[in-house]
Amino acid sequence: MVVVMAPEATEEHVAAVVERVEAAGGEAFVSRGVSRTIVGLIGDVTAFGDLELQALPGVSDVVRVSTPYKLVSREHHPEKSTVVVGGVPIGPGTFTLVAGPCAVESPEQTLAAAQMAKAAGATLLRGGAYKPRTSPYAFQGLGQRGLEILADVRAETGLPVVTEVVDAHDVELVASYADMLQIGTRNAGNFGLLQAVGAAGKPVLLKRGMSATIEEWLMAAEYIAQRGNLDIVLCERGIRTFETATRNTLDIAAVPVAQGLSHLPVMVDPSHSGGRRDLVIPLSRAAIAVGADGILVDVHPHPETALCDGPQALVESDLRALAAVCRQLPPLLGRAPVAG
Amino acid sequence: MVVVMAPEATEEHVAAVVERVEAAGGEAFVSRGVSRTIVGLIGDVTAFGDLELQALPGVSDVVRVSTPYKLVSREHHPEKSTVVVGGVPIGPGTFTLVAGPCAVESPEQTLAAAQMAKAAGATLLRGGAYKPRTSPYAFQGLGQRGLEILADVRAETGLPVVTEVVDAHDVELVASYADMLQIGTRNAGNFGLLQAVGAAGKPVLLKRGMSATIEEWLMAAEYIAQRGNLDIVLCERGIRTFETATRNTLDIAAVPVAQGLSHLPVMVDPSHSGGRRDLVIPLSRAAIAVGADGILVDVHPHPETALCDGPQALVESDLRALAAVCRQLPPLLGRAPVAG
Amino acid sequence: MVVVMAPEATEEHVAAVVERVEAAGGEAFVSRGVSRTIVGLIGDVTAFGDLELQALPGVSDVVRVSTPYKLVSREHHPEKSTVVVGGVPIGPGTFTLVAGPCAVESPEQTLAAAQMAKAAGATLLRGGAYKPRTSPYAFQGLGQRGLEILADVRAETGLPVVTEVVDAHDVELVASYADMLQIGTRNAGNFGLLQAVGAAGKPVLLKRGMSATIEEWLMAAEYIAQRGNLDIVLCERGIRTFETATRNTLDIAAVPVAQGLSHLPVMVDPSHSGGRRDLVIPLSRAAIAVGADGILVDVHPHPETALCDGPQALVESDLRALAAVCRQLPPLLGRAPVAG
Amino acid sequence: MVVVMAPEATEEHVAAVVERVEAAGGEAFVSRGVSRTIVGLIGDVTAFGDLELQALPGVSDVVRVSTPYKLVSREHHPEKSTVVVGGVPIGPGTFTLVAGPCAVESPEQTLAAAQMAKAAGATLLRGGAYKPRTSPYAFQGLGQRGLEILADVRAETGLPVVTEVVDAHDVELVASYADMLQIGTRNAGNFGLLQAVGAAGKPVLLKRGMSATIEEWLMAAEYIAQRGNLDIVLCERGIRTFETATRNTLDIAAVPVAQGLSHLPVMVDPSHSGGRRDLVIPLSRAAIAVGADGILVDVHPHPETALCDGPQALVESDLRALAAVCRQLPPLLGRAPVAG
Repeated sequence: MVVVMAPEATEEHVAAVVERVEAAGGEAFVSRGVSRTIVGLIGDVTAFGDLELQALPGVSDVVRVSTPYKLVSREHHPEKSTVVVGGVPIGPGTFTLVAGPCAVESPEQTLAAAQMAKAAGATLLRGGAYKPRTSPYAFQGLGQRGLEILADVRAETGLPVVTEVVDAHDVELVASYADMLQIGTRNAGNFGLLQAVGAAGKPVLLKRGMSATIEEWLMAAEYIAQRGNLDIVLCERGIRTFETATRNTLDIAAVPVAQGLSHLPVMVDPSHSGGRRDLVIPLSRAAIAVGADGILVDVHPHPETALCDGPQALVESDLRALAAVCRQLPPLLGRAPVAG
Repeated sequence: MVVVMAPEATEEHVAAVVERVEAAGGEAFVSRGVSRTIVGLIGDVTAFGDLELQALPGVSDVVRVSTPYKLVSREHHPEKSTVVVGGVPIGPGTFTLVAGPCAVESPEQTLAAAQMAKAAGATLLRGGAYKPRTSPYAFQGLGQRGLEILADVRAETGLPVVTEVVDAHDVELVASYADMLQIGTRNAGNFGLLQAVGAAGKPVLLKRGMSATIEEWLMAAEYIAQRGNLDIVLCERGIRTFETATRNTLDIAAVPVAQGLSHLPVMVDPSHSGGRRDLVIPLSRAAIAVGADGILVDVHPHPETALCDGPQALVESDLRALAAVCRQLPPLLGRAPVAG
Repeated sequence: MVVVMAPEATEEHVAAVVERVEAAGGEAFVSRGVSRTIVGLIGDVTAFGDLELQALPGVSDVVRVSTPYKLVSREHHPEKSTVVVGGVPIGPGTFTLVAGPCAVESPEQTLAAAQMAKAAGATLLRGGAYKPRTSPYAFQGLGQRGLEILADVRAETGLPVVTEVVDAHDVELVASYADMLQIGTRNAGNFGLLQAVGAAGKPVLLKRGMSATIEEWLMAAEYIAQRGNLDIVLCERGIRTFETATRNTLDIAAVPVAQGLSHLPVMVDPSHSGGRRDLVIPLSRAAIAVGADGILVDVHPHPETALCDGPQALVESDLRALAAVCRQLPPLLGRAPVAG
Repeated sequence: MVVVMAPEATEEHVAAVVERVEAAGGEAFVSRGVSRTIVGLIGDVTAFGDLELQALPGVSDVVRVSTPYKLVSREHHPEKSTVVVGGVPIGPGTFTLVAGPCAVESPEQTLAAAQMAKAAGATLLRGGAYKPRTSPYAFQGLGQRGLEILADVRAETGLPVVTEVVDAHDVELVASYADMLQIGTRNAGNFGLLQAVGAAGKPVLLKRGMSATIEEWLMAAEYIAQRGNLDIVLCERGIRTFETATRNTLDIAAVPVAQGLSHLPVMVDPSHSGGRRDLVIPLSRAAIAVGADGILVDVHPHPETALCDGPQALVESDLRALAAVCRQLPPLLGRAPVAG
């Protein structure tokens, strides 16, 4: 951490910074320049954050120079992690296709979507029983009945289940049905929920908040990890920008950046980032090529009657094309092909 | 709602749109142009949203032309509302100064901050017992002990208490202490929490999500209103943009825009938007002048030792300046002066 | 400037940084921490920028700690500047209303708009003869004929003329008619144009680029200043964000921030930021209250037939309301009232 | 185009809209709903834009439903175009690697970079003689001397030259040396420059403005096309967002979106979007996989001494890896491999 003093800071101001740092058990190095003085801090950065040095008189800026997360960082854990979900490994050397309906609507629709997904090479089924919707008038999901349907479809198809949890007090219930808990983009700052899934003993799929920086995304993962759960898969799903041609802007560079900063696997959701069916396959190819550990796509047997996000769901013919991509591209990146 | 067909759409595509709309009980008007056909829909827009018309073949775009919220809209309720919190009215003709420490740290600090606030003319005390923090290593608030301190300080000063709730299952507890429940920016998409505060029978201060459009902010309010609670005060607190000179970008135009779309009072938080003490007073002046119904500021007796957001907290001398502003400006906008 | 070494950086990497800095005539202080080493640099920051230290092996980050602009900075020129345009002072103690039609369309329309502006207290006339338009099919302005009309209207009304220049090679021509040259938001990165107006010997109104940080805006001003012209007035006109309810997002905090960093006057354009007539007066009040040195508004005798930006132009009755605001508010901020 | 009337609009308001549209030679269809009336317009959309219908009383919103560009749109020209630069085709079935130094610094550096580029399979040399720099104190390019060096290196290596032009009045000079003119991100709204390159008779590489929507980018291309030049290659180079981990946010979805809307080839600049050497190869892979017609990368024989953007320049070993990618991936997308 580096404290940059204002040009008009006095010796007393500098001394006050040094004193506070030393009182917290850190060391402070003072470098005096022509127009400004810089104080470099050595020690426990977390403690320094709580010192609120920025509020001291004469302080112009406080610059952090190391990462504020630890458990999920690659600096503290250089080897990449593999997260296993219902027997399916996600991480180096593998490529995982997760697919399913945005929302679980009925046993028939869910089974049909799961069979489509499986035929395309998906090894995990994703479907929503609890749906966070911007409008209180939109379909909110089937709740526990949806979880039961997912469990039945798992029994029928053998695909482990990934499903979203939106409230801390549903975590236990959802975890009793699901193989992996999904945290959606709107809950990336719902810290109580993050802590609850951290304690639930199931792997977690953590979507990036739609306005979260990569650092904040890793901090959200740190909340989960802190409760003893390191089985976390990060998922880039597009960020909010000024561009309106797509639903969100897929930040494709976030994949290698997050993989460089963290040992956790990183997946991509090409369905929610583009929000358009015709973009799913190009964005899936981009995600595989950039080095993602997997992708997450919406499929629906009849998208035109879907209760949620129909415009972005893949249909049968799209899935055949996607399957071809998932067989062909991952091996070029040193990953096992998807057996679709 | 208007459905724009693609240039290559066939008569069958158009007919399919009309058919689905009519099956849902709506009416569809077809206008054929040189290069495109447009279908205008009349009827219950909410139902149309669920039709997922965008997913039909030949459909290029679906344009909504009315607001997706009702209870909080001015279209359905032209007169502006007044929300009363512990006897303090917020709304037309009034200007309300809400002040207090970002986080409740101790009885002494909270009482001192409350007395500072009151002396400046604040009529509501805001203090955080539950703090949503980006870092799991940062101070997370005193929890129930914080609520007790706030209740004691209310007894001592007479100031009704506004405090944040971050988890749906704490709502009952927090509501038993507080006069107004605050929903923070990170929970603007935590719909379960919004519904819970909607059912709690206490007024709600709803901060705008840091990447929420004004429409999404009003949809969040609609979630609360739908549970029977229309005692909602909106609070603009800055949005996330590319600019890094300030913590967030205060969207000052959001105040008149939201006041035009909704009958609810709209306040401004100049502390969190700027994130810098030196900006609080200029931004407070701007908020009053643009027509806000109140402002919400952080105060701290000793910001340099604050456990949360010290750099933006006002001190004694700032508060005297703020009090002068709050006495002088509101009357120019047809509001009662703050008696500081 | 501070160079943050990567955790894995070697002693040779650190030595290479020190060597390059010293070769450029600077001094380097090395602080070794537990996990990282920091090198503080003292000397000519501009030269350091050209050292491209970021490209050296073992370097993780390079953090600038002083401003990259000099001539326009308050650090080097603490007293605030007054810019005089055709005898009208803009700066401390004054408040300037600049008004006129977005585009000059005809002598009659321009004169009528100028008379409306003058009656409301405007002391400078702004009108566009060269219009940068997103669409090549939109009205592009009358060019030199527009300049002649502006000169005629100045003769008739006595109002000095502010007008935009969009091409470096028109600068001489435009400067021969205008009292102040406006640089629009789309040209904030057109460095050749900035240098040309810097050499033209006329005051400059520099709008902020729609995606420019405050620092980049001041760098654009530095380009002008470097050519010997310090008669620059900055103008905040809204930035591009995800919000679509307004044309741009007025960054009201940019006014005090820019005034803190630079000695130049700062104005606000409430017409282009909101893009809606009903927002012009609330945003004008906010601009005055936040401490702006002036505002710039679009007026039009018949906005419904305007060839450019009609929806945001003020009409007669709005102007009377604006005049009242400009008489009343500036004195509260220590400025002379506008004599409307 | 669709005009949405306000709920309170009267019959007179609706009639005024219809009248104005018909006076301009268009047709207007009125659809009356429960709470609002919609007027659908048929005819020449450009003319309607100039009608400024938004400014009419009772009008709530005007929604455009067709594209505002024509010459570059795929709607009017469904077949994809191939642009030939110095004999090198860019477009369907091909994949083009453009490489070179960000700035031309010396004959030796430029020749060395060109040889590196050629060895990696590049068929076009890109180098900057005129550099738009945010800081007036940064290296601004060698100007005409740089153009001469590029011409010499072309003679030596056989690589046609792509170089940026930043001022309308340099276009003729630059065009006399270059095979393709580059318009940089900062000049995407410099309409005079766009028109000048449109008239220069050389192919144009048009970078997306850093805050331009895809529609605005295509409008900028329309400015060039309108002057009779359809030899335009679009280049996505990252947009400005809140994320600071990368220099810009590469909007990878913009490639298929722009290819769907326009018949022009679309390239990607992975160097400027990420701003970091370690991201260039992953982003290049993503660009090829998403379907780009080519990529544009910075190379430098000695990036640590580069006068411009050294941190993002590829070195020898990176280029070998990039060459392998450019041989392997394009054939999977139906394109000829790069012969590196």
